[in-house]
Amino acid sequence: MNIDFIGSIVLSVKKVIQTMASIEVKRGKALKKTGTLAHGDVTGVIGMVAPNAIGSLAISFSESAVLEIMSAMLGEPFTELDKESADCVGEITNMVAGGAKKIMSEKGIEFGMATPVVITGKSHEILHEVTENDIAIPFKSQKGTFIVEISYKEI
Amino acid sequence: MNIDFIGSIVLSVKKVIQTMASIEVKRGKALKKTGTLAHGDVTGVIGMVAPNAIGSLAISFSESAVLEIMSAMLGEPFTELDKESADCVGEITNMVAGGAKKIMSEKGIEFGMATPVVITGKSHEILHEVTENDIAIPFKSQKGTFIVEISYKEI
Repeated sequence: MNIDFIGSIVLSVKKVIQTMASIEVKRGKALKKTGTLAHGDVTGVIGMVAPNAIGSLAISFSESAVLEIMSAMLGEPFTELDKESADCVGEITNMVAGGAKKIMSEKGIEFGMATPVVITGKSHEILHEVTENDIAIPFKSQKGTFIVEISYKEI
Repeated sequence: MNIDFIGSIVLSVKKVIQTMASIEVKRGKALKKTGTLAHGDVTGVIGMVAPNAIGSLAISFSESAVLEIMSAMLGEPFTELDKESADCVGEITNMVAGGAKKIMSEKGIEFGMATPVVITGKSHEILHEVTENDIAIPFKSQKGTFIVEISYKEI
């Protein structure tokens, strides 16, 4: 189920960015989180709760990735981070979790999603609760990078 | 129920800081979130999911508040933010949500908690999904400040 869950999020990330911004993104190799923290400029966080498992998803975008995605989505150039870009990252985070929820539901596994929270600030760091299931997956678009972090544990 | 939920979090914040660090904190006036964003140096975020409501809790500490709380908790002076302080904020966030969950459960309302995520980075900003129920409550300890942000909506 863990692999299904991670796979459903990866699929959902690609689909959301493709659908909303017509941008193809490439995923890199998944990394077990260790002492090294991911850095990003805008991060969306959403909690997920299933009857027998809990988790969190954080999507941490570089400034260049957010501006590329927003410019593509809205058809006009965006050159700096503002409230609108934070809202956009919140919406993407919500849609990625919602997409994963749909995929998991088709496999008979239901989970509830919390409300997304967005953090902005140059080069902040993200630290999930350290569990064996913490994983970070880097993605690349043409101009920027973003990292999807998943923390997950059975309860 | 919204007022109960916010009240349970406020009670839980005071109790957790009092119990873990023997520090009395004073709460300020709750503010409806508008365009202004809260700033913090270390923030813990946790999602909550009930059968008919979803929400998120973010607790955003100034560096001075985290160092004061850690020094008091562990009985030795802490002078800079590191992985240990991030873990401490994650644990506080988890305990605050757990305390609120217990209070609400005694009122017959059950909710599930996701895993906490911690964000560090000088003066980052927190933005919840904008709903009518977004609220920010400032707290003061002797040396520092922290802000508890609650986003909440019925589904």
